[in-house]
Amino acid sequence: MTLATHYKKVRTYSEELCAPLKTEDYVPQPEEFVSPPKWHLAHTTWFFEEFVLSPNLPGYKVFHEQFSFLFNSYYNHVGSRTVRAHRGLITRPIVEEVYEYRRYVDRHMTQLLESENNAGLQELVTLGLNHEQQHQELLITDLKYTFSLNPTNPIYKKDFLLVDDRSDQQGEVDVAAGNYEIGVARGEEGFFFDNEYDRHTVFLQDFSIAKSLVTNGEFLKFVESGQYQKFNYWHDEAFAWIKENEVTRPLYWHQRDGEWYQYTLGGLVPLDLEANLAHISFYEASAFAAWKGMRLPTEAEWEVACDKFNWGNRWEWTQSAYLPYPGFEIADGAIGEYNGKFMVNQKVLRGGSRATSDGHSRKTYRNFFHPQHQWQLTGIRLAK
Amino acid sequence: MTLATHYKKVRTYSEELCAPLKTEDYVPQPEEFVSPPKWHLAHTTWFFEEFVLSPNLPGYKVFHEQFSFLFNSYYNHVGSRTVRAHRGLITRPIVEEVYEYRRYVDRHMTQLLESENNAGLQELVTLGLNHEQQHQELLITDLKYTFSLNPTNPIYKKDFLLVDDRSDQQGEVDVAAGNYEIGVARGEEGFFFDNEYDRHTVFLQDFSIAKSLVTNGEFLKFVESGQYQKFNYWHDEAFAWIKENEVTRPLYWHQRDGEWYQYTLGGLVPLDLEANLAHISFYEASAFAAWKGMRLPTEAEWEVACDKFNWGNRWEWTQSAYLPYPGFEIADGAIGEYNGKFMVNQKVLRGGSRATSDGHSRKTYRNFFHPQHQWQLTGIRLAK
Amino acid sequence: MTLATHYKKVRTYSEELCAPLKTEDYVPQPEEFVSPPKWHLAHTTWFFEEFVLSPNLPGYKVFHEQFSFLFNSYYNHVGSRTVRAHRGLITRPIVEEVYEYRRYVDRHMTQLLESENNAGLQELVTLGLNHEQQHQELLITDLKYTFSLNPTNPIYKKDFLLVDDRSDQQGEVDVAAGNYEIGVARGEEGFFFDNEYDRHTVFLQDFSIAKSLVTNGEFLKFVESGQYQKFNYWHDEAFAWIKENEVTRPLYWHQRDGEWYQYTLGGLVPLDLEANLAHISFYEASAFAAWKGMRLPTEAEWEVACDKFNWGNRWEWTQSAYLPYPGFEIADGAIGEYNGKFMVNQKVLRGGSRATSDGHSRKTYRNFFHPQHQWQLTGIRLAK
Amino acid sequence: MTLATHYKKVRTYSEELCAPLKTEDYVPQPEEFVSPPKWHLAHTTWFFEEFVLSPNLPGYKVFHEQFSFLFNSYYNHVGSRTVRAHRGLITRPIVEEVYEYRRYVDRHMTQLLESENNAGLQELVTLGLNHEQQHQELLITDLKYTFSLNPTNPIYKKDFLLVDDRSDQQGEVDVAAGNYEIGVARGEEGFFFDNEYDRHTVFLQDFSIAKSLVTNGEFLKFVESGQYQKFNYWHDEAFAWIKENEVTRPLYWHQRDGEWYQYTLGGLVPLDLEANLAHISFYEASAFAAWKGMRLPTEAEWEVACDKFNWGNRWEWTQSAYLPYPGFEIADGAIGEYNGKFMVNQKVLRGGSRATSDGHSRKTYRNFFHPQHQWQLTGIRLAK
Repeated sequence: MTLATHYKKVRTYSEELCAPLKTEDYVPQPEEFVSPPKWHLAHTTWFFEEFVLSPNLPGYKVFHEQFSFLFNSYYNHVGSRTVRAHRGLITRPIVEEVYEYRRYVDRHMTQLLESENNAGLQELVTLGLNHEQQHQELLITDLKYTFSLNPTNPIYKKDFLLVDDRSDQQGEVDVAAGNYEIGVARGEEGFFFDNEYDRHTVFLQDFSIAKSLVTNGEFLKFVESGQYQKFNYWHDEAFAWIKENEVTRPLYWHQRDGEWYQYTLGGLVPLDLEANLAHISFYEASAFAAWKGMRLPTEAEWEVACDKFNWGNRWEWTQSAYLPYPGFEIADGAIGEYNGKFMVNQKVLRGGSRATSDGHSRKTYRNFFHPQHQWQLTGIRLAK
Repeated sequence: MTLATHYKKVRTYSEELCAPLKTEDYVPQPEEFVSPPKWHLAHTTWFFEEFVLSPNLPGYKVFHEQFSFLFNSYYNHVGSRTVRAHRGLITRPIVEEVYEYRRYVDRHMTQLLESENNAGLQELVTLGLNHEQQHQELLITDLKYTFSLNPTNPIYKKDFLLVDDRSDQQGEVDVAAGNYEIGVARGEEGFFFDNEYDRHTVFLQDFSIAKSLVTNGEFLKFVESGQYQKFNYWHDEAFAWIKENEVTRPLYWHQRDGEWYQYTLGGLVPLDLEANLAHISFYEASAFAAWKGMRLPTEAEWEVACDKFNWGNRWEWTQSAYLPYPGFEIADGAIGEYNGKFMVNQKVLRGGSRATSDGHSRKTYRNFFHPQHQWQLTGIRLAK
Repeated sequence: MTLATHYKKVRTYSEELCAPLKTEDYVPQPEEFVSPPKWHLAHTTWFFEEFVLSPNLPGYKVFHEQFSFLFNSYYNHVGSRTVRAHRGLITRPIVEEVYEYRRYVDRHMTQLLESENNAGLQELVTLGLNHEQQHQELLITDLKYTFSLNPTNPIYKKDFLLVDDRSDQQGEVDVAAGNYEIGVARGEEGFFFDNEYDRHTVFLQDFSIAKSLVTNGEFLKFVESGQYQKFNYWHDEAFAWIKENEVTRPLYWHQRDGEWYQYTLGGLVPLDLEANLAHISFYEASAFAAWKGMRLPTEAEWEVACDKFNWGNRWEWTQSAYLPYPGFEIADGAIGEYNGKFMVNQKVLRGGSRATSDGHSRKTYRNFFHPQHQWQLTGIRLAK
Repeated sequence: MTLATHYKKVRTYSEELCAPLKTEDYVPQPEEFVSPPKWHLAHTTWFFEEFVLSPNLPGYKVFHEQFSFLFNSYYNHVGSRTVRAHRGLITRPIVEEVYEYRRYVDRHMTQLLESENNAGLQELVTLGLNHEQQHQELLITDLKYTFSLNPTNPIYKKDFLLVDDRSDQQGEVDVAAGNYEIGVARGEEGFFFDNEYDRHTVFLQDFSIAKSLVTNGEFLKFVESGQYQKFNYWHDEAFAWIKENEVTRPLYWHQRDGEWYQYTLGGLVPLDLEANLAHISFYEASAFAAWKGMRLPTEAEWEVACDKFNWGNRWEWTQSAYLPYPGFEIADGAIGEYNGKFMVNQKVLRGGSRATSDGHSRKTYRNFFHPQHQWQLTGIRLAK
């Protein structure tokens, strides 16, 4: 696939995801960690304009001066930006103008990619496309979060992302102690984020890891045995978190007349006890594992063992803190702000989810979220 | 004008106010004290459905069961309601459905008002129309607040509400000490809110009150003499408020390259020094008056003197706390929640503003806001 | 009584109040609105040093330069001061040094008051003594608040201030409509705070007011009929306050094994149903009155009627907001900060309490607190 | 040294540390993460009563029933406990009673330790003594924090803990890549905390680590080059933290008339540019390292290299998150709450400090604090 074709495919998919939306749905931002669909569409476009077109396409004129200010996310290098918590208030430019912005940038990107001088752009454009894929997943999980606060339980699309997938393997993988290699070697072919480098040796102890993910039914026993009311298996700050936020169940679970349901983008559906659990925080994942007398795997264990089980339905919480690998290097300029500055107080997740764009994840991929976050399609794989 | 005609006129005006809006503009709620246009349109409609149609039109079927929950504002009597801070997140029903809701209710209201049995509804429908007029003013001031947070300074409508009106009278009115009557007598003809009753005697001391409002230019001297940085003329909690919120000027004033501007619904315009000041809190009004060696009038003083000066361009802060008049009675049921429950920690404003709907205010009208609020078209008339 | 004798008597009483204290008790400040005993002792002393001795006693040398900074309360005119919320952290100077400070200032004050040139000081010294009496009451109510947070229910002094006093009158006082005079005339003999001036005419409607205060037993019915769980009789922000703070009963009431107790400075004692209610907020007082189909009196009504009932056991919430009287004047300099700057968002209380120092209150006395405050000996007298 | 002698020595040292205190100093708790001296003295005593005496000394009667409730810290297993933020409000029991409590428990502990049946108690008592040593360090660092909020800069003891020590080594230690062992093997002689087990293999890359700590002078260049005002070298949440808390320099540094000082327990002293830096957060340590083009070591690197440099003057921030070692086991019951439940969102520190009790730390010791905390004697050792 040529870069121009790849570009078109990824960009089109973002808009396909928005096809079921009403104009109103593009606007709200219920929490600071969530962004409106309009913002996702514009911000990913701004990335190409700012980092690819402006420096590389001779004579390129930005679509609108103010868009850089409005749709920069966190790249302090690029100058001031709109207050993060205000993203849901910016009704102008309207949605249609954002689509015009996309068409304008796409036209110029196509021109650039089809020209003869795009040799050096492969890496940067691929970064932009991976960036857009990350926002595709956020767009859909953010939207779910926003819709979930509407007491009418809106349906994004019938039968869409019902999170009712099941694990098709049983048992465990056993791995013997020894030195293993993880991460990506400089020069390895394909696209990788900076946080996946360098490939390096780690020593692992003997461990075993489950081939299947924890199910809703298994987690329901944790809920129904009252573990959200007892301190025993929780980290100290986890227990403070569930008390302060009155957390008593995974996000999107609801109990009505004794029956359990979960909110999905396909509407409110009965909770499928055989399906893989979703939308739990690290705090809950860790407490559940302790309650089972198990633990979460480290990211190195996960990467070493993952060829022996199926994965990709859930982002799987690991025990590992999100830290730089040996040999991690921060790129110069704004692109260097991509990953490194988040490497404190976050946890690594491995795998991928039903909301992850095709071809985006891989076994070395290091996703990361704060331990209290529940709004991604997160799940649990037990180890010991 | 028949009640049906009056109904149609008021209802139409709400929609005229929304004509310049884009669909996106109907959605956001930047602060809890602000509501989205969509919500104003729906909530005022719900009032007629809940209090007029359902009890009085035989066979009336509500438009949609969930609308009562979504668009009830604060009437606890009527049952649970959506969390106030979440109004900006409710993208569904969409704007078009809210307009359908209006058409549905308007059709039934017209049917009811044109029937022969509407005799007893005059008072209730008129309350609903006055309620809608209050929301018309809020719609426009809320929208201004939301737009003002957009760094692009959106224009609602060219030349609209530029707040550049000027006072056309000079000097003062002197009033001699004595007993005066204020408020509205039971049985007086016309519509009045419950908080305007009863007409009662008050004793006033000698006082004089300005015929003109304070101008931007006069207030600019207060700003430029550094009064926002000195405690001397401020209430103790006012000074805490300006420090905590870093208030240094009236809301919507901006200084660029040494020149003063103000944001209006017609865009960012140079500050007109001769025009009447707007968008100040009670805290600022009171500190300004003290700095001038004057004071704000009481609401009784204002009402007694107001026939002798022009008013209606600004809501004028008074010194008076918002308290029940002697003989104030709370109506039974939900309608009784209209005013009484807000009678603590708020200040009375008298007059009316350029954003007030035609015919809505009157000399006995008691508006009220918390002393820190700036987003209404508030101004200052000095007394001593 | 000479001024010197009066001075000695008031100053001695502050120290008598502290006699039962342990050194540790002088230190903590649990909330910003509460001050430690050590601070009360030092701050009242600082008042005499700053406003009387330094300007009036030739050659007076301040006890310690830092004390002015540490023990200034809110007089912005006098310069910067310690952060209010940090009063409980200032362990040095120690308690004994504060007593030395008092002895030093008392010695010089006695010297000044016994000299021949004290003629002009009467007013200022009397203000300082009234100021100290206010802090005597605060010292004891602040201490009660701090002790109440200790799960061991400490006893300050056996049988002290058990708040078990009862009203000895029944029935109501009826007052006819008409013009009445309230407040204090300039030139009237005796000490009065600036907020009591001027004497002025008010017009009152017919009203009646209870001779007795509401009892614990009467209020218990309000509690037990579930009024803390229903919105009906509460102001809107009152109901928000009880929900946010989980208020379900007057401060210091406790229920154990079905029996009601209240914490007092004499320890935890059974709730006396015949005794006068204490420690309720304006919010609770107002809701209770509404529930009874009554209302709270205005401060003018209270003052006009008060010669016809006994008062002085509780600070009685009135309906009146704390506002300047006609003719209120703010003194020059720091003394002018005494009262005026608090005249917003507070309610007037009239009467006096069992914790008020002898001779401190009077019928024109205007006490004031925010409507949510419960830690004073506040009570309810009903009117209609 | 017998266990009884060791017990006496450690217990005596806690009281020696308090010798310079005034009674008032024992009381305040300025922040939730700080505890009053009185609480430290009582809580460490409660540990012996609860876990050693009550289960093991036949006929032992607790000193006072309420002390268990008041002086339990976080052991949820042992029942309810006083609200953590209220520790500074508990004036009763007074300090003298806490000393009586210590004497009572010490008498019984001595009796138990000198009896013949103390064989099985070695481990538990040693845990209690190490626990007390941890609180000795906290007592002194908490006290410093409280005193630092007093604008008079109180002196705890002249010349005490001036944090003016200097590193006496230069250059770097180079370590070759390979497998190394860290941690403590089960069965190894001596006392170790549960978080130090098991000894296990780690693979390390080539690295070098400085023999000296970063000095005040080196860090001053970071300050003076404006790094607290630029985002470049900070973690994203670190930069949010410095902006929200207006952090512009290490804790306890002050600038007066262009000269730098630091507050110490020996008073305010000029900043010694050659001395080792202290009182910085992980955020600051990490940003400083990045600015120097270096990084912080991992805890494994530190442990492997530490025999080749001097350490013990500062708790040295590592890059490592505080996580369980392979083979970490949580003990049954309340003792199991000692460490494991804190293993999220904290960073490991290695070494020891001038405030650490003699013999308390060791090369395998894993201290841990949240990344924003500055109030310990923390420092920086650079690696690459």
